[in-house]
Amino acid sequence: MQMPTGVHALVRRTHEDCVLRALQENGALSRGEIARIVGLSRTTLSDIVGNLLQRGAIVVVDTDAVRRSGSGRPAERLALDPASAQFIGVDFGHRRVHVAVADASHEIMVSGSVRYEDSASWPVRLELALALLDRLSAEAGVHYGALQGIGIGVPGPYPAPQGAAWPRASAGATVLRPAPEGVDTAFAERFDAPVIVDNNTRLAALAEAISGATSVADLVYVRLSDGVGGGLVVGGQLVTGSGGLAGELGHVTVEPAGRPCRCGKRGCLETVVSLPGILAKCWEFGLPLEDLGALAAAVSRAHPVVDRVLREAAAALGRVVGAATMALNPAKVVIGGEITRLAPVIVEQVAATLAAELFPTASAGPVVEAAHLSDEDGALGALAAVFHSSPLLAKYPDTADVKGCTDAPDSITERAAHARA
Amino acid sequence: MQMPTGVHALVRRTHEDCVLRALQENGALSRGEIARIVGLSRTTLSDIVGNLLQRGAIVVVDTDAVRRSGSGRPAERLALDPASAQFIGVDFGHRRVHVAVADASHEIMVSGSVRYEDSASWPVRLELALALLDRLSAEAGVHYGALQGIGIGVPGPYPAPQGAAWPRASAGATVLRPAPEGVDTAFAERFDAPVIVDNNTRLAALAEAISGATSVADLVYVRLSDGVGGGLVVGGQLVTGSGGLAGELGHVTVEPAGRPCRCGKRGCLETVVSLPGILAKCWEFGLPLEDLGALAAAVSRAHPVVDRVLREAAAALGRVVGAATMALNPAKVVIGGEITRLAPVIVEQVAATLAAELFPTASAGPVVEAAHLSDEDGALGALAAVFHSSPLLAKYPDTADVKGCTDAPDSITERAAHARA
Repeated sequence: MQMPTGVHALVRRTHEDCVLRALQENGALSRGEIARIVGLSRTTLSDIVGNLLQRGAIVVVDTDAVRRSGSGRPAERLALDPASAQFIGVDFGHRRVHVAVADASHEIMVSGSVRYEDSASWPVRLELALALLDRLSAEAGVHYGALQGIGIGVPGPYPAPQGAAWPRASAGATVLRPAPEGVDTAFAERFDAPVIVDNNTRLAALAEAISGATSVADLVYVRLSDGVGGGLVVGGQLVTGSGGLAGELGHVTVEPAGRPCRCGKRGCLETVVSLPGILAKCWEFGLPLEDLGALAAAVSRAHPVVDRVLREAAAALGRVVGAATMALNPAKVVIGGEITRLAPVIVEQVAATLAAELFPTASAGPVVEAAHLSDEDGALGALAAVFHSSPLLAKYPDTADVKGCTDAPDSITERAAHARA
Repeated sequence: MQMPTGVHALVRRTHEDCVLRALQENGALSRGEIARIVGLSRTTLSDIVGNLLQRGAIVVVDTDAVRRSGSGRPAERLALDPASAQFIGVDFGHRRVHVAVADASHEIMVSGSVRYEDSASWPVRLELALALLDRLSAEAGVHYGALQGIGIGVPGPYPAPQGAAWPRASAGATVLRPAPEGVDTAFAERFDAPVIVDNNTRLAALAEAISGATSVADLVYVRLSDGVGGGLVVGGQLVTGSGGLAGELGHVTVEPAGRPCRCGKRGCLETVVSLPGILAKCWEFGLPLEDLGALAAAVSRAHPVVDRVLREAAAALGRVVGAATMALNPAKVVIGGEITRLAPVIVEQVAATLAAELFPTASAGPVVEAAHLSDEDGALGALAAVFHSSPLLAKYPDTADVKGCTDAPDSITERAAHARA
């Protein structure tokens, strides 16, 4: 193909890049959605899309008939040729690794998990993850000829802060094994692709922000589990903070004279609304529950002690989320984790406390919801991070070698790199 | 000038745009700073800068001899030709409007204020502001032939939320007069330039983030005055929130059974650490103080009641800022407002409370500082917002009509527009 010259060709080239980038970041889109995202008129867009379709750079994947609620003719949805790119998302939890592989239209081609002991070393975890990827890819016939990038979620901040142990070893609950600095290297060497690593709860926040019928640009996410983690999406971007520690709502003090927390303070939100915190409070009220299963059984029996403990814990969570909401004015608050799934009273109570905390205006309050996603959230968030951060179509065929200015770090990788610099 | 063709010219054109944009957003920079921001090698940059200097698109304004702390030869600082652009910043406070006009190198050419009653209507305020600009410009011989944009700060959220009054009329303290929806129109029509409007406390946060020796990308800002306002900078961007209400830390509940707040709740931070809140608490402890002047006198006498009231109020502020810090992990916390200037104990106590609230790691805590800027902060923040959001060199001579993709809203205007859409 001859290189176009002149200012018109230059402008069209830029417009093409914008369309391809919108599809890269968002997956399949209708022409109307592309026009809105890219800010081009339908006429200009029609010309550009026609040319890209003709060249095979993009394809029609389906129509929006399923998603569309109104009447009218279903609109075709366009995407990068699915085979033209692959993306890998990996989430290392305390006791399992979950992987998911997506194509250029953002469809998940394969996904799966493998378990390990929470005492498993990082070399063991990495080996298990790579073997799982190999097995799944072989079974489904997935090849990585155009791998764009790999996103990896890990527990705790990454890289783990030097010096003082953070967080301190948990008493009784899961021991955090922070990922070593080189966790990306094993993947980068194996696949020869860019790798980004971030905290997996934070990545889950990103996955929640873009899941569901409409994605939101501003979201507060809290996950209740053995500990309490969180993540913030602000203006469509994951927030890392200046030291990579953003989102740690679990360690806001809610009971100054409360129980000691693994972080070294007393009465952190985590001591109240984590699974161990809730179980301990039930014991205090004379109801000995051993684990999540016992708690679930008590919830299904509508045990009054459990109801009270959960409501009080969720009210404390609601006050912390209220302060975060006052600061950030998110469109949505999402509460995740297994406790939330088994006890809907938690989301109800958070919503009620939040409503009381906010200004008495109808328009100001966020939607409060239980998480849409489950165990796959970290891997899907890792994929989302890669969709947004992979070098702008660097490996995509037939696009000019024109990159945007690099002074506005607008991708998660760059932001994370800046935060750590 | 002949339009360059071919891929090399295209790439150079893009590099030139990046250099010009870096200077547009940051004002004067050394070659080393440009290279770091734009991500080009010194060699490539040297060629591009040489060409831009030759064409008169940029000029050498000074050296970094004053700013530089190390030894070595001072580096030249480059900027867009100062006369090639003007920017206007306007800040409407409760009782005065402050204006500042900057050139393309970000130097302030003129600035000044004019007072009005807090009962003054918006048409009166607008007329006073425009007359002030006229007078200052005439005196200093400033012309607006290449005006890039106008930033305007207003009290309260903008546009003011519909329906329920927000915030409710203050009891005793200043009555908030929210800016009407068309506050931008008067300026846009007068100057034929793009106008952005945002809350002035939030703009002050942006000004604080980029003031001082080093700018920070993540900052929590709180201003203590008749009320308590705040603003957040996250990843270098001002946070507006989904409904334009972000930064309202003053209405986080700190004393559930505390005094009624003008927002309709009880015991908001504002009832404790605003000027009226502090004066009321002093009265409660038997020390009748009428106003800021009386408070200042009592502080200078080191009155024990005042010291106790200020410390307790600042501790409450520290807990709220602590929660925000846990969520956002900022590099810096800035406390502004006249009370902060007269009572250094406030910043001391906030820093102490914050240190106790955070994880016991040395690296995690933000710097806590009193505001650098004073009454000019809103206007400077409005200018900063315009520097970052003005259409990429749209009016700048001799640059190609190539704009970046518009799908990543990375400017304050676009973000604000999205938030309000």
